[in-house]
Amino acid sequence: MPQEVVIIGSVSMGPKAAARFKRLELDSKVTLLDQETLISYACGGISYLVGGDLMGAHILRQTNFQVLRDEKYYREVLGVTMRTNTRALSIDRRDKKVLIENTATGERELLPYDKLVLATGKRPKPFSVPGADLKGVFDVYSLKSAERVREWIVNPGASKAVIIGGGLTGLELVPALSDMWDIEVSIVEQSSQLLPEHIGPSLAMMVKHHLEEKGAAVYLKESIVRLEGNGTVQRVVTDKRILETDLVIVATGVEPNSDLAKEAGLDISSGGAIMVNNNMQTSDPLIYAGGDCVEVTNLITRKPGYFPWPSIAQRQGRVIGTNLAAGNAEFKGAVGNYAAKFFDLTIACAGLNIHAARREGFDAVTAMVSQIERAHFFHQKDHLYLELVVEKTSGRVLGIQGISDAGDGLVGRVNTIAALLEYGPSASEVGNLEIAYAPQFSAAMDVVNTLGNSAENVLFGRGRTMDPIEFKSLWPEMGKNGWIVLDTRFTHEAEPFVKRYPDRWKHISTTELLARKHEVPRDKKLIVLCKTGERSYDSHVILNDMDLEDNRNLQGGLMYLMQCGMISPDLTEVIEHEMLVQNSESLGPEDEKEDLLFTAMRQG
Amino acid sequence: MPQEVVIIGSVSMGPKAAARFKRLELDSKVTLLDQETLISYACGGISYLVGGDLMGAHILRQTNFQVLRDEKYYREVLGVTMRTNTRALSIDRRDKKVLIENTATGERELLPYDKLVLATGKRPKPFSVPGADLKGVFDVYSLKSAERVREWIVNPGASKAVIIGGGLTGLELVPALSDMWDIEVSIVEQSSQLLPEHIGPSLAMMVKHHLEEKGAAVYLKESIVRLEGNGTVQRVVTDKRILETDLVIVATGVEPNSDLAKEAGLDISSGGAIMVNNNMQTSDPLIYAGGDCVEVTNLITRKPGYFPWPSIAQRQGRVIGTNLAAGNAEFKGAVGNYAAKFFDLTIACAGLNIHAARREGFDAVTAMVSQIERAHFFHQKDHLYLELVVEKTSGRVLGIQGISDAGDGLVGRVNTIAALLEYGPSASEVGNLEIAYAPQFSAAMDVVNTLGNSAENVLFGRGRTMDPIEFKSLWPEMGKNGWIVLDTRFTHEAEPFVKRYPDRWKHISTTELLARKHEVPRDKKLIVLCKTGERSYDSHVILNDMDLEDNRNLQGGLMYLMQCGMISPDLTEVIEHEMLVQNSESLGPEDEKEDLLFTAMRQG
Repeated sequence: MPQEVVIIGSVSMGPKAAARFKRLELDSKVTLLDQETLISYACGGISYLVGGDLMGAHILRQTNFQVLRDEKYYREVLGVTMRTNTRALSIDRRDKKVLIENTATGERELLPYDKLVLATGKRPKPFSVPGADLKGVFDVYSLKSAERVREWIVNPGASKAVIIGGGLTGLELVPALSDMWDIEVSIVEQSSQLLPEHIGPSLAMMVKHHLEEKGAAVYLKESIVRLEGNGTVQRVVTDKRILETDLVIVATGVEPNSDLAKEAGLDISSGGAIMVNNNMQTSDPLIYAGGDCVEVTNLITRKPGYFPWPSIAQRQGRVIGTNLAAGNAEFKGAVGNYAAKFFDLTIACAGLNIHAARREGFDAVTAMVSQIERAHFFHQKDHLYLELVVEKTSGRVLGIQGISDAGDGLVGRVNTIAALLEYGPSASEVGNLEIAYAPQFSAAMDVVNTLGNSAENVLFGRGRTMDPIEFKSLWPEMGKNGWIVLDTRFTHEAEPFVKRYPDRWKHISTTELLARKHEVPRDKKLIVLCKTGERSYDSHVILNDMDLEDNRNLQGGLMYLMQCGMISPDLTEVIEHEMLVQNSESLGPEDEKEDLLFTAMRQG
Repeated sequence: MPQEVVIIGSVSMGPKAAARFKRLELDSKVTLLDQETLISYACGGISYLVGGDLMGAHILRQTNFQVLRDEKYYREVLGVTMRTNTRALSIDRRDKKVLIENTATGERELLPYDKLVLATGKRPKPFSVPGADLKGVFDVYSLKSAERVREWIVNPGASKAVIIGGGLTGLELVPALSDMWDIEVSIVEQSSQLLPEHIGPSLAMMVKHHLEEKGAAVYLKESIVRLEGNGTVQRVVTDKRILETDLVIVATGVEPNSDLAKEAGLDISSGGAIMVNNNMQTSDPLIYAGGDCVEVTNLITRKPGYFPWPSIAQRQGRVIGTNLAAGNAEFKGAVGNYAAKFFDLTIACAGLNIHAARREGFDAVTAMVSQIERAHFFHQKDHLYLELVVEKTSGRVLGIQGISDAGDGLVGRVNTIAALLEYGPSASEVGNLEIAYAPQFSAAMDVVNTLGNSAENVLFGRGRTMDPIEFKSLWPEMGKNGWIVLDTRFTHEAEPFVKRYPDRWKHISTTELLARKHEVPRDKKLIVLCKTGERSYDSHVILNDMDLEDNRNLQGGLMYLMQCGMISPDLTEVIEHEMLVQNSESLGPEDEKEDLLFTAMRQG
């Protein structure tokens, strides 16, 4: 029997559910509602829109075949009624009716339903510092707000922008603003690293370095005190500085938009999201919900998780569409699998990063490797920088994060581990993972396998490691603090460092170590390193056998340090200035000297 | 207590096992043996060597850091004794001794062992047609034989080559020979398609078309009768033609080299491979074996499988190295996951193709899709062509194969499914698979998801499909045989075809179908198509609802046909000539006319 289905919200999940359902039940009636006029769009393209890469918002509203998904499209192709400018005010679950209001005319109407779908999405988290209501202050969490940013850039125009929040959304806007519009961008992030929800501190240092190289200013551990201006924003005042600006983008995160569901008495989680089962049904079986307004199972922690991402919404939409037509489709949950590109650098991350793992109560460690993407005899030699988060006791892999200029290769590998995460693979299984080998695409022992094997070595206590963050903190006093570097590369590679830092940089190549064992200083703690961490691991093993317990292998090697901006790109010297700047992060606001140095560097 | 370990075979698995073991037990003694002098090399690079991309064989024998892995390297860096030119003649398991012979001097010696590792590898399958022993006839299954090919190309030189066998090894040589050395290449394959062990017939047609476009001649369903020449090969005689040539490469497959193990009384499989448990131990627990001489579990069929691939050997080598040192590492098996690139075209395949699935007794079907790799609003728009092999009754995914010019993206996606295959994912799970979404790398509903969803539709009888092979067979008589095309694209897209083929090409765009239902001919069987199969699916659903049971959706759409060479690259006409040529495959040797046409085309 034909049904009447009402869907509230028409950005991504709602339209997908409608399309799938109508393909299965052509005779049933579907009404899609949205309070906006800009509906059915690809949220993932918002930074492109802001960046001016797209001719207009309509590009994001097209199908793959350049058809605008407007009211006419829904009516003629899918036989769905699309009502824009239409707000749902309340749900009468007993009588199965939705009270709706035309936002233009104020006209109200009761819409009956057999089944209801809530696709009410997300909204920006409250941001309520003084001045937040000034003109020139925007969020970018909807197509409408993104259009407003774009209009603002054109008129009155902007030469300086401050992005508040160093998460994915904020950082995606940096190239959009600076590459296309030549706007000088500053990022203010409250925590001690960029992307704290997504990657670990070492990879975050690489992202920061890359953004700075591209001309952006990054301020960590700073809080916004107030925004100032004369009707229009002119200054961002943090607890450490004042930033002149004519555009502010608030990207401090989102929260589920669940008011309607809550008022209708549906079960809401402590995080404010609508609760659903694996069929995407709310606590009222006639009401489905999906997309950015729901929580689903985090397949790693098995607790509820919030994954406001368009691809997740799409999949949930299809599940709901199937189930509206009496199907039994399931959405079992997500691990969180994200990719983004900032200028030349791609990041990809799946599952828990080290912070999340520890917050969730796992006794977690990380392993890091850098390795070329393809066979060593293949001509293209981009490096991948990967980090694996592993539970110490069980060896279970909890997450993977990575960075590379080779975006497709990085994303492909992180996707591969992401697909496995729900099965709780061990580090050893990742070490043996069957990555397709062809010299054009991978090494016989692919970087992913090296990562798994390195993690296994760490877990079994065979590899005692040091990460770039710790290296950074030891460097200024190195030589005096008991630590020295043991460089295991060839003589010609190590020479510039040995000459420059004779007191703290010793060289014995891996190929000579067995023969020159007696030259290893036994009164020093050793940071054993090479270019990538591969040769130094061999030396580390030999040193362990010599009972030198105080030797640690620098994970990812000099390539990791270089990507963090701590070693010059030609791998010949430690960048002292950058070190000071980096150190300023962990110092208090009284360190004005470093801040000045920092400013000088950026301007120089 | 230090052990004495002897490893027979030093190409890939053996050296890896040695290195891993020595890192764990530095005091133990390891002796590596090999009857050749060229040892410890990257087998995956052989086509590069033949193709002249590499300066010499030594490049394949280097570490990532340009150190030659020769006897000195093994001694000084790893503390391993490497004995080349040393053949193992027999194993005395009772006394734990290997009888070895110096291949130069004939000197013999008994080598004691505590543990023994067999890394005896593979050898070419017997190829014994008359003339197989002529000069100029080679295989490429070892570095030595690859070097001989290269030397032959330089002196006496070669202008025409015949590759016998259209598998991965054979096809990888086509660009190597034709791009670098300007050699005219013919491929002779016994079965009715290229790569019959790896991909299905539609994808194979794409590979064939691509090779032909690049100037290679492909002869299917032909057997070699004899090779002719006067000391040196001059002609290849098949059951259908005579090919003039001055170089023949026999690439008809490999078999495990297990004679030594067999003579020592170890368990050997019916396929001739050494049998091992998950710890890579043979039936004698003191003897390990791995690499191309063993069978391991096929994780899809759960039967023994043969996976002679360098990356598998590397992983097994590490497992053996760990277990030699009293570890408990496991190699649980493989699904078979391969990638290769022929000119611009990358293929990737994991698990069972449709032939293998049916041979293994699965009631299997396939789903095919073509979709752009990235978001539709992103500027790069390479297509991926994917095929999923699914068990009909259970919906379980058995394999995935694909083709694309976007090699990294393709390999990444196939790796992702490959990692899941052992867990027996359903088509629906692939539909919901959490591929990271960012417009630069994927669509919100990624091609992999579309593939899973399409397969689900096929399984549930919602999508009745047609593949390019069937389209090809119906085309010549179309219009007369009861079938016509219903083109669901826009008018401007369909127009060239409608004008050219008025009797068999009807057009009603998907956007108009609901309004123009009555125009659909009810007395014809319909091949519903669009560019990729996406819009036509919507039309297919509407036609089903009209009780037009005889309508079938062309999987992968015109893009699939185009890649097979059946539609012109600008998508405006069916290529009749090519169709005839393609048809000649299934015709007998009496069809000389087509063969002449074919020759004429190749020369024109």
